[in-house]
Amino acid sequence: MGEFEIIERFFRDLGARRADVLLGIGDDAALLQPPPDRQWVAAVDTLVAGAHFPVDSPPRSIGHRALAVNLSDLAAMGAEPAHALLALTLPGSDEGWLQEFASGFAALANEHGVALIGGDTTSGPLAVTVTLLGFVPPGLALTRGGARPGDLVFVSGTPGDAAAGLPIAGRYAHVAALRSRFEFPTPRVALGQALAGLASACIDVSDGLAGDLGKLALSSGVAVYLDRDHLPLSAALRGAMSLADARQFALTGGDDYELAFTVPPAREAEFLRRLPDPTLVARIGEVRQGAGVWLNDGSTVTQFAHRGFDHFGGA
Amino acid sequence: MGEFEIIERFFRDLGARRADVLLGIGDDAALLQPPPDRQWVAAVDTLVAGAHFPVDSPPRSIGHRALAVNLSDLAAMGAEPAHALLALTLPGSDEGWLQEFASGFAALANEHGVALIGGDTTSGPLAVTVTLLGFVPPGLALTRGGARPGDLVFVSGTPGDAAAGLPIAGRYAHVAALRSRFEFPTPRVALGQALAGLASACIDVSDGLAGDLGKLALSSGVAVYLDRDHLPLSAALRGAMSLADARQFALTGGDDYELAFTVPPAREAEFLRRLPDPTLVARIGEVRQGAGVWLNDGSTVTQFAHRGFDHFGGA
Repeated sequence: MGEFEIIERFFRDLGARRADVLLGIGDDAALLQPPPDRQWVAAVDTLVAGAHFPVDSPPRSIGHRALAVNLSDLAAMGAEPAHALLALTLPGSDEGWLQEFASGFAALANEHGVALIGGDTTSGPLAVTVTLLGFVPPGLALTRGGARPGDLVFVSGTPGDAAAGLPIAGRYAHVAALRSRFEFPTPRVALGQALAGLASACIDVSDGLAGDLGKLALSSGVAVYLDRDHLPLSAALRGAMSLADARQFALTGGDDYELAFTVPPAREAEFLRRLPDPTLVARIGEVRQGAGVWLNDGSTVTQFAHRGFDHFGGA
Repeated sequence: MGEFEIIERFFRDLGARRADVLLGIGDDAALLQPPPDRQWVAAVDTLVAGAHFPVDSPPRSIGHRALAVNLSDLAAMGAEPAHALLALTLPGSDEGWLQEFASGFAALANEHGVALIGGDTTSGPLAVTVTLLGFVPPGLALTRGGARPGDLVFVSGTPGDAAAGLPIAGRYAHVAALRSRFEFPTPRVALGQALAGLASACIDVSDGLAGDLGKLALSSGVAVYLDRDHLPLSAALRGAMSLADARQFALTGGDDYELAFTVPPAREAEFLRRLPDPTLVARIGEVRQGAGVWLNDGSTVTQFAHRGFDHFGGA
């Protein structure tokens, strides 16, 4: 199969049908009709085989994750996702692989109303780059930079599961509940939109909770204090390892695609009312004056030095 | 250098400063203020080392071409380019390489008023994916599908030069004028915008003039007839090879990033008035009823069978 045939067979009209897509895949570029009174949000992420997922990952998982990591970025901005562009580099053209990959991508795209509007298929070592466009009401976008001393710190889901379930970790990956958190993460799109205009700062947890909160703290010019005993740990994670190891995974694991965010105390009640699912979030700490991320274990407070997982391998 | 440092040192604030970029590189996603009364255009293209450019290409050329191929896609839609997202996969972090790559990208971005608003840097085999966003007045976007029998067929520049100058072609690549057409193609952005609402169909010549006109003919449901003797051939191409070979390069070369387009005869006068540079385009044929691309050599007319250069390697 050549590029033209691959696109025609597997990628044309993939995902949701949207009235704002005037021209999708098949011309030199896509043509979009913008909605009135919205700002645009755009993110791009690449997943490289061997670095971001095992080479033998189920292709359905690769398709899911390629879109999920970008949905998570848009969720962290409080945005509504809309249009995706897919650049797929493949070592060959395995029909079964392509079918499963497209199916994983399409299922998540349909769930979130995302249309695939453009793409490029090239020959080379397996890598997937997705660009995702979406909208946010003017002035309501969340950033990393708005946290203030006194704000409450929350996280969604149970961070640490995905890293424990990473197949190359090996030891815990046989636990289906953990492995599925790596292979099929749930981007918190509805939560992000509920937080728009309400949270003071937000970031998605892709490189590890503590490391990503460190970025939020740096952007906001504040310190984040975490209560060790309030870290949400899944039953699967707790069942697979010691409490200390589970906490370590929760703080540094990476690949969670949960949201970590801060809420001013005066808005906590409104925040709790707006939550799509109150069991989804846990309060894990507070914002203070200062810098860095600090962990309170009940008796001592220590600064978190690890930068978090860095896919590029920096120290 | 880790990903964070690479982005900070080489890619933050790259390209033009634009008032419509509310938030650029540095958060989970970029935030854009859309202009009033414009539709959006979006394209994505990947360049893989070894497939789309020689591994030892000058990094400045790689940075230039990664943006140029997308500028060319937007030009083919008649759009004004605005915002780029860059996904860069690198085998290592060579500072000199990154500096030259960023410099080639930035020079072309500045020339066209494009801001780099987002990116992702990953470790892996060298590949560059750029997503480019831009605008077009409502209803004026060019497509491949509007050519009608009787329309005149034009091409910009001198196709064939880039393919002859491709270093792996070897034989002609010592001709600096040809090689520079491969390494630093000129996307026809101003021409594309001048054609918006005036040309009946347009495509950018990336896979070879005849092959790309074949796609335009297919989308429009027409045949394209080319006059062999009207193919514009550069002095450099003519000087490097026989006339027959030069014509072959012009028809099938690829990597030109010129525009091929059709104009209704009733609009030819307006088209010529609007041209940013009248020497830039050549009339090379006409649209007729039928299908496919045909070449008239003065005595016989033959159908062009070659599909054009296909980077994926399909037959």
